[in-house]
Amino acid sequence: MVGITDTYGGEAPAKALEELREQIVGSDPWRLTGFLLPMVEGQGSDLERSQTYHVPGENPLDATTRTYAAIEVACLDLIGKSIGLPVCDLIGGRVRDEVPFSAYPFYKHAGGGGEGDDAREDEYGEALSPETLTRQVVQMRAKYGFGSIKFKGGVLDPDIEVETIKCLRRELGPDVPLRIDPNCAWSVETSIKVGKALAEELSGGGYLEDPCAGLEGMADVRKALLAEGIETPLASNVAVTCFADIPKSVQLDAVQIILSDHHYWGGMRQIQHLAKVSKMFGIGLSMHSNSHLGVSLMAMAHVAAATPHLTYACDTHYPWQQAKDEIVAGGRVRIEGGCVRIPDQPGLGVELDYDQLARGRERYEKCPYRKRDDEAEMRKHVDSEWTRALPRW
Amino acid sequence: MVGITDTYGGEAPAKALEELREQIVGSDPWRLTGFLLPMVEGQGSDLERSQTYHVPGENPLDATTRTYAAIEVACLDLIGKSIGLPVCDLIGGRVRDEVPFSAYPFYKHAGGGGEGDDAREDEYGEALSPETLTRQVVQMRAKYGFGSIKFKGGVLDPDIEVETIKCLRRELGPDVPLRIDPNCAWSVETSIKVGKALAEELSGGGYLEDPCAGLEGMADVRKALLAEGIETPLASNVAVTCFADIPKSVQLDAVQIILSDHHYWGGMRQIQHLAKVSKMFGIGLSMHSNSHLGVSLMAMAHVAAATPHLTYACDTHYPWQQAKDEIVAGGRVRIEGGCVRIPDQPGLGVELDYDQLARGRERYEKCPYRKRDDEAEMRKHVDSEWTRALPRW
Repeated sequence: MVGITDTYGGEAPAKALEELREQIVGSDPWRLTGFLLPMVEGQGSDLERSQTYHVPGENPLDATTRTYAAIEVACLDLIGKSIGLPVCDLIGGRVRDEVPFSAYPFYKHAGGGGEGDDAREDEYGEALSPETLTRQVVQMRAKYGFGSIKFKGGVLDPDIEVETIKCLRRELGPDVPLRIDPNCAWSVETSIKVGKALAEELSGGGYLEDPCAGLEGMADVRKALLAEGIETPLASNVAVTCFADIPKSVQLDAVQIILSDHHYWGGMRQIQHLAKVSKMFGIGLSMHSNSHLGVSLMAMAHVAAATPHLTYACDTHYPWQQAKDEIVAGGRVRIEGGCVRIPDQPGLGVELDYDQLARGRERYEKCPYRKRDDEAEMRKHVDSEWTRALPRW
Repeated sequence: MVGITDTYGGEAPAKALEELREQIVGSDPWRLTGFLLPMVEGQGSDLERSQTYHVPGENPLDATTRTYAAIEVACLDLIGKSIGLPVCDLIGGRVRDEVPFSAYPFYKHAGGGGEGDDAREDEYGEALSPETLTRQVVQMRAKYGFGSIKFKGGVLDPDIEVETIKCLRRELGPDVPLRIDPNCAWSVETSIKVGKALAEELSGGGYLEDPCAGLEGMADVRKALLAEGIETPLASNVAVTCFADIPKSVQLDAVQIILSDHHYWGGMRQIQHLAKVSKMFGIGLSMHSNSHLGVSLMAMAHVAAATPHLTYACDTHYPWQQAKDEIVAGGRVRIEGGCVRIPDQPGLGVELDYDQLARGRERYEKCPYRKRDDEAEMRKHVDSEWTRALPRW
């Protein structure tokens, strides 16, 4: 019997897991999560861990919590399989059977992207304007039934992005929550300007995610918007990425919605702790997503199913992955009505397709990257001199 | 197979459990804790729940969390027994095999107390002076090996209680942590006076517990002591009794150590959440105790074993119970070297002695009380006019 898990790729995460091999092999999965807990609990409370200048999965300061999370999920999957129970019922019991996810539209060039892909594999086509982005969303909603839209901005001029949100609102009507996430690309001033321009569009379950960098900047935006009577909450997976960030965030009222991620917060039980903290402070909770396949999607669904205080549909990049890359046996996990349903199968509810895994490994060997490098991608496709400027606008 | 649990006695708790019978009988213990979680998570965040004027177990505002906790422990015991694992390893895995408890000396008259008991059953005798209280502690340490002393004050004049702590310090030497808990019997002024008088005696792992009532009073005491350079932390199981109390406590720096109690915080997993919150804010965590027998002692030990951020030895009234009252099969749980060791047996690691349980039930039927009533006891033994005055000094 095998417990499976999924975490960030590349050499450093693989090495971290290799280094624990001796402690893991032959151990009891029920006990291992307690035995290794110092990897999570041993953190100091005063670390400066903001991910502003790191992409998730590359922040050296949460390396041990990421490694722990990967092991915890494998332990829970193995335990679930060994006793015939879904993971969500091992960690307190599910509070929902279906977990809502949101559509995650991106501006993009035409073409599938990735090594060896060609334009014929791109089901969504180019989206570099309000209208084409809106078309992408309509198409994605038709396929998956998403009830909320989380739009990745910070790519084009803020005025175009504002117009994109307005276009989405016109197309989707008043009841679909809209969110925009420019990945800290804006100054405080621009953030406030956008917040004002979209006051109505982001109300009713929407939010403004990481408009600018840092807790102080977020707090300034919040204060300025409130002064105008605009209650759009600010969400973050950048300014608050660990428990040590929370006291200051609360003090400054910098972040009103935390975007959790079991992959780097230290696993499923840490997300349950985070949910309690968030509830206690009246902070909303949603879930951040990196690119991922079906194993992570199911892990996200299980922890969300067992977390009562989850107040927004979760993010997922899953629609951007293709069946040919899926490593889950039986093909892609189904998202219907915008939701992933907790399956009756034990553990995470999925098994690996080892042929597909081998195919992924083959592609990895051929790929020149050993860690995520957004700048390198941008230089390849957009501008050979591209660097990440914060703020850009 | 039966899952056992223990909670507050009396008519109201029994009725609350009876009312859930239909939902509990025939349900899956893995799922029931999630299904009933709204009993804990449904609380508002703005309830005024201070226990200042309630004894633990009689606060109407945490009735549902108490009921939930009782059910959760039964579920975990049943699960553990069904798959052959100790409870601590079901909730994340133990971080320690032995759980330290502290001695809990009380001023007392001679005699065993309780219905039908006589003085011959009182192994500790009268303790109404510094010397006799110290003798009680020495005796209790010799029997159980406790490494910390938590002394219940608020009974005699504060000067006598100060002298009692000093007497304990002289007898026990500099390395045994000493705590004093007058159950809010002092004014802010008296609390500060005692805090100053015992600055040295309560340092090195000791604390001042609930010297006065309310978060504001505690904060005033803290501020005054810090102004004198006295860092004695204030502990509480009165001013902070639920998650909703924590934000204000943090803001005021009112409580530096939370005395958790899974019985009224909503169960074992809620205590794990509380531990994370406490760690995040640099708050210490220990454990409150009411009178209890072996089932509760084991539940306390299991949750403590699976809670990394437990920074002080836990309280227990267990030495004050007698073998003739124990409902655990095989007799009293052993406390050695001041610790309860997590047994290899599954679940809580204890089974009920149904004959003893029947005996307890018989005594309950004969007893005139249906809820805890400290004033009635005091009127019986001390002063027929006794009322609880806060502050008394």
